[in-house]
Amino acid sequence: MTQATASRTATASFKGLKCKECGAEYEPQALHVCEFCFGPLEVSYDFSELSRTITREQIESGPNSIWRYRSFLPVTSDDPIDVGTGMTPLVKSNRLARRLGLKHLYIKNDAVNMPTLSFKDRVVSVALTRARELGFTTVSCASTGNLANSTAAIATRAGLDCCVFIPSDLEAGKVMGTLIYGPTVMSVEGNYDQVNRLCSEVANTQGWGFVNINLRPYYSEGSKTLGYEVAEQLGWELPDHIVAPLASGSLFTKIYKGFQEFVQVGLVDQKDVRFSGAQAEGCSPIAQAFREGRDFIDPIKPNTIAKSIAIGNPADGVYALDIARKTNGNIESVTDAEIIDGIKLLAETEGIFTETAGGTTVAVLKKLVEAGKIDPDEKTVVYITGNGLKTQEAVQGYVGEPLTIEPKLDSFERALERSRTLERLDWQPVLV
Amino acid sequence: MTQATASRTATASFKGLKCKECGAEYEPQALHVCEFCFGPLEVSYDFSELSRTITREQIESGPNSIWRYRSFLPVTSDDPIDVGTGMTPLVKSNRLARRLGLKHLYIKNDAVNMPTLSFKDRVVSVALTRARELGFTTVSCASTGNLANSTAAIATRAGLDCCVFIPSDLEAGKVMGTLIYGPTVMSVEGNYDQVNRLCSEVANTQGWGFVNINLRPYYSEGSKTLGYEVAEQLGWELPDHIVAPLASGSLFTKIYKGFQEFVQVGLVDQKDVRFSGAQAEGCSPIAQAFREGRDFIDPIKPNTIAKSIAIGNPADGVYALDIARKTNGNIESVTDAEIIDGIKLLAETEGIFTETAGGTTVAVLKKLVEAGKIDPDEKTVVYITGNGLKTQEAVQGYVGEPLTIEPKLDSFERALERSRTLERLDWQPVLV
Repeated sequence: MTQATASRTATASFKGLKCKECGAEYEPQALHVCEFCFGPLEVSYDFSELSRTITREQIESGPNSIWRYRSFLPVTSDDPIDVGTGMTPLVKSNRLARRLGLKHLYIKNDAVNMPTLSFKDRVVSVALTRARELGFTTVSCASTGNLANSTAAIATRAGLDCCVFIPSDLEAGKVMGTLIYGPTVMSVEGNYDQVNRLCSEVANTQGWGFVNINLRPYYSEGSKTLGYEVAEQLGWELPDHIVAPLASGSLFTKIYKGFQEFVQVGLVDQKDVRFSGAQAEGCSPIAQAFREGRDFIDPIKPNTIAKSIAIGNPADGVYALDIARKTNGNIESVTDAEIIDGIKLLAETEGIFTETAGGTTVAVLKKLVEAGKIDPDEKTVVYITGNGLKTQEAVQGYVGEPLTIEPKLDSFERALERSRTLERLDWQPVLV
Repeated sequence: MTQATASRTATASFKGLKCKECGAEYEPQALHVCEFCFGPLEVSYDFSELSRTITREQIESGPNSIWRYRSFLPVTSDDPIDVGTGMTPLVKSNRLARRLGLKHLYIKNDAVNMPTLSFKDRVVSVALTRARELGFTTVSCASTGNLANSTAAIATRAGLDCCVFIPSDLEAGKVMGTLIYGPTVMSVEGNYDQVNRLCSEVANTQGWGFVNINLRPYYSEGSKTLGYEVAEQLGWELPDHIVAPLASGSLFTKIYKGFQEFVQVGLVDQKDVRFSGAQAEGCSPIAQAFREGRDFIDPIKPNTIAKSIAIGNPADGVYALDIARKTNGNIESVTDAEIIDGIKLLAETEGIFTETAGGTTVAVLKKLVEAGKIDPDEKTVVYITGNGLKTQEAVQGYVGEPLTIEPKLDSFERALERSRTLERLDWQPVLV
């Protein structure tokens, strides 16, 4: 458990850290808060050389993972931790589009991201690669579930010790999906914001690499790949409109940054992309600020089934607000009932089983379309960030039941007749 | 729900159906049993033209899915149902290899196959593409869980009606992972073999396309891609030894066929690959026959936590037996306790969370290594066929517990100290 504070910057692009507020510059160490103004630190790059040399063909011939974009990421080693993360399908979603009245709808499906089935595998792959470069031997995180799964799995594969912190009321699948890899799991009696505060204290005392605290500037850059991949998968073109879930707000801002960087180095043409964000009504501090025209976030106490995005005090909330406003997008929230309907709608039209965060995003998509806030002609990309097998309790009781039968043909035939009668009743109630 | 019986064969390779026993030939319709000798039908090809034209580069420039091998598969249309299935990672597994004393170990990881996280997405993608070509509008299957997940999800995406049959004692994750897509689910009070028999009767009466019954010849060909991909991912070379789970035996025989076909058309060099199969002791009819030197299978009644491979009367058991024997491989079985240990071993070394079938395969790998039946120098590929999030109950109670703490630094520090003391006790019991 040692931490090297120095490190070399061996890439042409990746330079160091810079305060997002006051612009103060730092060496690329394990640091996330500006010592002068307490603003958040971000990785700084110099893309001037990359602009001259990078080509689409170079990227296309790279590995089939986020590491095809290595020259845009804050790592220095030639052997990043590559567990196949990224390059998830961008699915042309004609059946969902028809149902909603859209013409050009795509799902970016990180519900099948590798290895742990959420977009967190992207940020953790980057964070742990950087953690190793900085000399950390123990890695940690404050998590709503997916991050714990990912940190534990990838740490194991990389041979790093791991201790994760989760709220004690998490879904069973997320707890099991962490414990199985054998890390130390701290189950904190409190909500995510309390877990996060505790981890900030621990980061100061233990010398551990917390992926989303002292390694946060590197970690969050991993989400840019969700911008890069969509641009590449659309045939090196930006979409017209994106809809993504908002938890801390980081993912949203990094997709934006990813698009901008690709324009900057000349890989895609400039385009005005509208950014719309999705929150659960039971934890919608950013949506509330958007609705009320505020440029600050009022922290709230979360109460929703969408636990993976239940952050009441979102670190990047104001940046997400700003992007939604300046791109002419929206931030909207939906109820828990709408979230469940969103999960079912996506499954029944596209065969994709997402967790509550994805249900939130689909439900917000529907709400925005119905309110005329997404044009049917816009090329719209919806980000699905996690897998439904991890939050099964959310839909338990809201899906159909199996028909129990004996292993006999007549038992089957009676059940089939019953189910068809029920369907007919369901479809044409006035005829009964 | 109509069934067209005729169809055209529009590819240069895919010719028709042929009885595996008597060689009788058939048109490529929905038929799986020979009308003369009751032997199983298999797809017949003529690879002579393909041998002259196919190149590695052609395949490499194809889609990043099983459909890069389209000219080896029994479909005629130019737009197969491509949901991103296949091209799952072949993971060099150094940590597991070291633990077992092997030098060149690879995991073929279909626990992250798309869209429903098992190898069944391969066979279903092929079967439903063929079902559509043959004019079916309702598809069905007899399933131990994964196949139901896959059939329901891909049918939905393809706009086909779907009715699946499962045994009534399946794991919760497999039931939910089917219901969410909105098919009709028949839960049969009986084991898989009874479900399968019922489905054979239903296939004769309803005019549905049963992926693993009347469409079985096409369906099973999808598993060949697990052979093709491994060869391509090893740099166009065959491995020395493979270990795969045995349920019906079909997967095993099709990996073998995939290797052979690649040799036949000149994509890889001929090599003697040893084939070893894995069964759960509670359902090991093929392993029993192997041990006893029999060339027939005695059907048994399954009783194991490895439900996805619990087939007591395996349709392709004798062919699997034959391949294991003629390649100088082995067929071995392990207890439920060893299966759980296998799941944990894979998770803790490689960060891959597999279901009970994968635990069985890893446990058999370990057993074969310990018995000197796998040479440390052999390039060995282990097939992991499904995801652990679907069979969480199997490991519940066998993984560690979270440490519950208050959201305070001193509560964390006390818990950490306790856990370290426990670890020390665990490691060095003689010193206590």
